Amino acid sequence: MIYLDNAATTRMYDECMKEFERYSLFEYFNPSALYNLSLGVNNSVKNARRAIASAINADADEIIFTASGSEADNLAIFGGLKRKNKKLIFSSVEHSAVYNSALELKNQGYTVIFAPVDGFGRVDAEKFIELLDEDVILVSIMQVSNETGAVNDIKKLAEYTKEYAKNALFHVDGVQGFMKIKTNVKNLGIDLYSMSAHKIHGPKGVGALYIRKGVNLKPIIFGGGQEFGLRSATENVAGIAAFAKAVEITSKKEDYGYSRSKELLSYLADTLLKKYCGHIIVNTDLSNCAPHILSVAFDNIRGEVMLHALEKRGIIIGTGSACSSKKSNKRIPLSLGLRSEFFDGMLRISLSTDNTKNDIDRLIEAIDIEYVSLKNYK
Amino acid sequence: MIYLDNAATTRMYDECMKEFERYSLFEYFNPSALYNLSLGVNNSVKNARRAIASAINADADEIIFTASGSEADNLAIFGGLKRKNKKLIFSSVEHSAVYNSALELKNQGYTVIFAPVDGFGRVDAEKFIELLDEDVILVSIMQVSNETGAVNDIKKLAEYTKEYAKNALFHVDGVQGFMKIKTNVKNLGIDLYSMSAHKIHGPKGVGALYIRKGVNLKPIIFGGGQEFGLRSATENVAGIAAFAKAVEITSKKEDYGYSRSKELLSYLADTLLKKYCGHIIVNTDLSNCAPHILSVAFDNIRGEVMLHALEKRGIIIGTGSACSSKKSNKRIPLSLGLRSEFFDGMLRISLSTDNTKNDIDRLIEAIDIEYVSLKNYK
Repeated sequence: MIYLDNAATTRMYDECMKEFERYSLFEYFNPSALYNLSLGVNNSVKNARRAIASAINADADEIIFTASGSEADNLAIFGGLKRKNKKLIFSSVEHSAVYNSALELKNQGYTVIFAPVDGFGRVDAEKFIELLDEDVILVSIMQVSNETGAVNDIKKLAEYTKEYAKNALFHVDGVQGFMKIKTNVKNLGIDLYSMSAHKIHGPKGVGALYIRKGVNLKPIIFGGGQEFGLRSATENVAGIAAFAKAVEITSKKEDYGYSRSKELLSYLADTLLKKYCGHIIVNTDLSNCAPHILSVAFDNIRGEVMLHALEKRGIIIGTGSACSSKKSNKRIPLSLGLRSEFFDGMLRISLSTDNTKNDIDRLIEAIDIEYVSLKNYK
Repeated sequence: MIYLDNAATTRMYDECMKEFERYSLFEYFNPSALYNLSLGVNNSVKNARRAIASAINADADEIIFTASGSEADNLAIFGGLKRKNKKLIFSSVEHSAVYNSALELKNQGYTVIFAPVDGFGRVDAEKFIELLDEDVILVSIMQVSNETGAVNDIKKLAEYTKEYAKNALFHVDGVQGFMKIKTNVKNLGIDLYSMSAHKIHGPKGVGALYIRKGVNLKPIIFGGGQEFGLRSATENVAGIAAFAKAVEITSKKEDYGYSRSKELLSYLADTLLKKYCGHIIVNTDLSNCAPHILSVAFDNIRGEVMLHALEKRGIIIGTGSACSSKKSNKRIPLSLGLRSEFFDGMLRISLSTDNTKNDIDRLIEAIDIEYVSLKNYK
């Protein structure tokens, strides 16, 4: 099997598995208990907090562990709300964890505005600036599009926000950007940053939210007061330690291990564009994108059909976000302005650091065979 | 080490670890993706859902996976809210996940009433009945007290509620009761039931909520629409499968493996009462309690001090709930009506199915030594 859907989820690192085992079978104590053995476990959670923090230049006490990137997004968005007569701004291509939270706020009576994006999925900075005023209380823009790999200029958008919407918190869904592109939350000037473990070879069921010191959120889960009172529940110590291990491993690699990935994606895009000239579009701006995602669309071949055809040949790719793949959701192709013949054709190829040129060549071979038969079938 | 704080958390079963590994290193696919490999993983989640459901006589589609018992409690309590001029009833000794949710509702302007309990921590049914009327929209009563092991007569309380508060949903925090005492949600006549994996030798970071068919909740985490739209986030497949494995293992054992446990606790209570007559109270009604928890209190010896003394002798016990142990919280001893000399003395001994008479004898020996020195020290 050649797995090319790493933006959906990744294989856990063996080293993370070992950490998980350690805190499940041996040091399994409840970190909130009073004995010294629990103190030890509690220290492991603290160390993990430091590891995540240092990867984005935050302080340890600015990191809250959650059970997912989605929960981190929800905590950032719902935790900071104040007055209903105020405005919130989101990009139109946010992940469903942010987008559906925005729709919920709209239902609750808040003014919710979606900032338009360009054909690659990047927020249009000049149109964004026009949306800003002092009534805005939250801006939430993704760092990297999970659909196209587009990288937003977060620093610039945050600067605009601080200048023209000085009452707003700036939240960044970093789930696809974290440990893919270098991220310095202080330098970006943002208030909130969401992360997920299973996108970087950590476990599913673990996420984190950076909350800048001085920003006061309200919890969405109440209880024992864990995570500085912001997220109650017995800490998932094993998962948190495994998450930290994935961050440590990735941090040590040059370019997080993705130094060759963009070349591979460029090679793939160039080859497909040459072979299928006029019948394929590339939705990823390869001069400015995350190192792991390429979005393409064939004309008049549904993405899902190509996905299944390729799976039969042992190659796993995605059709945009896994989280929205089961719904006939037109939001993303609409926002990107896809022409009708490409509308249902989106495919997402997303790499891990292990993928090789041979993987890409085998993908191209498989597409070559399938394209012909699917084209005739239509 | 003799570990006697299993109500705080448990060691994960090795078989659960194997399941976790399987879905982290091999079948790690995102269950929301469209390829057949994901379908397989999705089926594993469905199977897990069936396993949990069948343990409480629910249907599979009445089970929602969460990241903790606390989250399940929060979803049950906040997900069902309607009108602010209505009442909600909680017992006064609920776990902090329920109790602090209740306080949050009070802050939000809801009428929140705490039902009194007897000296063992059981809801007083006759006083409870007086609180019921048609303005009540939610009742939330724990199945088993995490502090004393008291078992509430949920069936009776639910019957009263259906009779005198017919607009109310009935939620049960089952975190300490699930897989300890036989639970049949249909027979109990309840609407919502919270469970946690790490209390039954499953992983931390996984919980579940039973939601009776016909009960409509609103999510507290919005996004990709997983878990029937009620709890968004990439499913923690590995954790869910490990949870199901713990349930399967426990289900196969007679009395869930706790057939000898109550005898051990009775033996412990009798021995201590005999030795420390007048200087110890037992807060657990051994004729009617969960099989795994015994609560005692020595006079004028702080629980925390005894806990540390015993840890030095390799014996791990708790002081009431781990989740509230770090706060100088007087709620539980106050609700139980503890006399002043026992007020700070609560100790919780909680067994797993592996604990033996030898463990209890060693605990008694250690107490015998420590009691003398701590008594003199005072």
